[in-house]
Amino acid sequence: MTIQYKQFYLHQRPKGNTTDNDIKIRSVDFDGLADGQLLIKNDYFSLDPAIRGWMSDEPNYMPPIGLGEVIRSSTVGKVVESKHPDFAVGDQVYGLNGWEEYSLSDGFFLTKVPTDNQFPLHYYLSIFGAVGLTAYFGINDSAELKAGDTLLMSAAAGAVGSLGGQLAKNMGCRVVGLAGTDDKCKWLKDELNFDEVINYKTESGNLDAAIRAACPEGVDVYFDNVGGEILDAALLNLRDNARIVFCGSISTYNAVEPVPGPYNYWQILAKNAVVKGFLVSSYFEQFEVGAAALAQLLIDEKINFKYEIIDGFDNTLTAFHKLFDGSNTGKLMLKV
Amino acid sequence: MTIQYKQFYLHQRPKGNTTDNDIKIRSVDFDGLADGQLLIKNDYFSLDPAIRGWMSDEPNYMPPIGLGEVIRSSTVGKVVESKHPDFAVGDQVYGLNGWEEYSLSDGFFLTKVPTDNQFPLHYYLSIFGAVGLTAYFGINDSAELKAGDTLLMSAAAGAVGSLGGQLAKNMGCRVVGLAGTDDKCKWLKDELNFDEVINYKTESGNLDAAIRAACPEGVDVYFDNVGGEILDAALLNLRDNARIVFCGSISTYNAVEPVPGPYNYWQILAKNAVVKGFLVSSYFEQFEVGAAALAQLLIDEKINFKYEIIDGFDNTLTAFHKLFDGSNTGKLMLKV
Repeated sequence: MTIQYKQFYLHQRPKGNTTDNDIKIRSVDFDGLADGQLLIKNDYFSLDPAIRGWMSDEPNYMPPIGLGEVIRSSTVGKVVESKHPDFAVGDQVYGLNGWEEYSLSDGFFLTKVPTDNQFPLHYYLSIFGAVGLTAYFGINDSAELKAGDTLLMSAAAGAVGSLGGQLAKNMGCRVVGLAGTDDKCKWLKDELNFDEVINYKTESGNLDAAIRAACPEGVDVYFDNVGGEILDAALLNLRDNARIVFCGSISTYNAVEPVPGPYNYWQILAKNAVVKGFLVSSYFEQFEVGAAALAQLLIDEKINFKYEIIDGFDNTLTAFHKLFDGSNTGKLMLKV
Repeated sequence: MTIQYKQFYLHQRPKGNTTDNDIKIRSVDFDGLADGQLLIKNDYFSLDPAIRGWMSDEPNYMPPIGLGEVIRSSTVGKVVESKHPDFAVGDQVYGLNGWEEYSLSDGFFLTKVPTDNQFPLHYYLSIFGAVGLTAYFGINDSAELKAGDTLLMSAAAGAVGSLGGQLAKNMGCRVVGLAGTDDKCKWLKDELNFDEVINYKTESGNLDAAIRAACPEGVDVYFDNVGGEILDAALLNLRDNARIVFCGSISTYNAVEPVPGPYNYWQILAKNAVVKGFLVSSYFEQFEVGAAALAQLLIDEKINFKYEIIDGFDNTLTAFHKLFDGSNTGKLMLKV
């Protein structure tokens, strides 16, 4: 059976924000499987800041997306054809595929949704996927947090930030969040019980003092999703032996010129601090344990999880831009 | 008894290189001890890059040297008067005092030279002092090195670098050093058995490739004494899970404008690496253990230690500049 499906591919490397000239749609013909392959009909795919990084050809933790290649992303869907011994038609699966209606897979990095799953399917792209696991292992392991510590969370209304902040609250930490609108700040404080919130847009230029006011005893852990001005202000407020979980740098992903590192880099030494590059993939062996722990926290209503689903394959690029203009709250996904 | 002695004090905060306008000499009258005090006649004091940092009023791991205060530095000398219960006239002592002929002390941070000492007195400012202990704990603990790892050492002909490189060689590591003259490089390779050396001055602009050629499998540990261009090139050559021991940043100490952090800061995340601020003071409880281990290595001729002693109190500032123009090799000290 021939299936024709659409996919987004990288036409040219973006300079700054991605445009329709960088990422284009094409139609692909599927003509049948080779041995060891399977075909997935995708229900959802993921829109993540990290994808922007993979579009650049700078050295990164994954190879860049090649010109002409499908835009890499996590997807969740159903197996519709299979010549793979481990996957049968009807299996629900998630893994690293792409922005496309169907994905041809050899099973690499592909996991089955448990048959007794009681959650919406898209949870496997969000709270049980890279985003939830990043928050989980970032807070529970890399941050080396203990009760009473002060955690400063950037992009706190984002998918990783909001979950990570709640996990730290559950551990007895004092949690201070940075977000870019008053509505987001209100949500963090009123619904997620963050101890303090800072609107980094209205406080721009004054972030050092704003963080000092919210963290008068200094910051034990700064969870960095954003880089830039916020990182520099956080560095000026570290306690001795502080940890910086370096999880992302969204403020720099669309930069056209080379972006320097933090001006206050010296504070890492001055405070005997540690900056830890954080890649969730290094916890791969523990993914199931982490997802099970997060599922239990959901069932026990110990975490509140926000997501936003944009409907319609053709809306992918518009949706993707929401990640960078600050207009989304929580995990962003596309329903195919 | 009144003693008149000379000391260097901070007259104004330097911009760029220190000058005679920033640091001046004055004569001080000593008129006798209060209870709990002692007077030390200094034999040697230490000239360290870190001292330049303490002259600035930016947040640091120690308070800045106040205007009008003696220039802070380690000294070693002999107790000539004492009203302190733990120190007697004739004791040889070392600790954090200043660039001065005599030091008035309350015993804080002061240690006695062992009575059975068999080494030159100035070793207590160098290999048994902050420099030796920095190399020792930096390599033996912070770097998390194991046999077979590749260590890239900056300022490798400096006091910390040359010792640290040898300690890593003793552990079975592959050691690559960066230094600023061919003579220094030759010394590292021929005398200290470094595996590879790079002249960072002749290779300036090409450091990324030079490091790649010397470390074809990448860098497990970069020991950073210098910051700047070398740090940026090192970041492009990290192996997965690399460690950066952030021990100093001499290339930036005399900067007049704010210096940005490394442009390749992202590589910390991309390589799941760690940057560890290193302050030897955090190992204070283990200083005696470290010094004893270094003494044994000296006796066993397992380490080669170079130092340079400038004679004459009045030559202090000229000597201090040698640290920043690259004209000294090994630990620099002044004989009073």
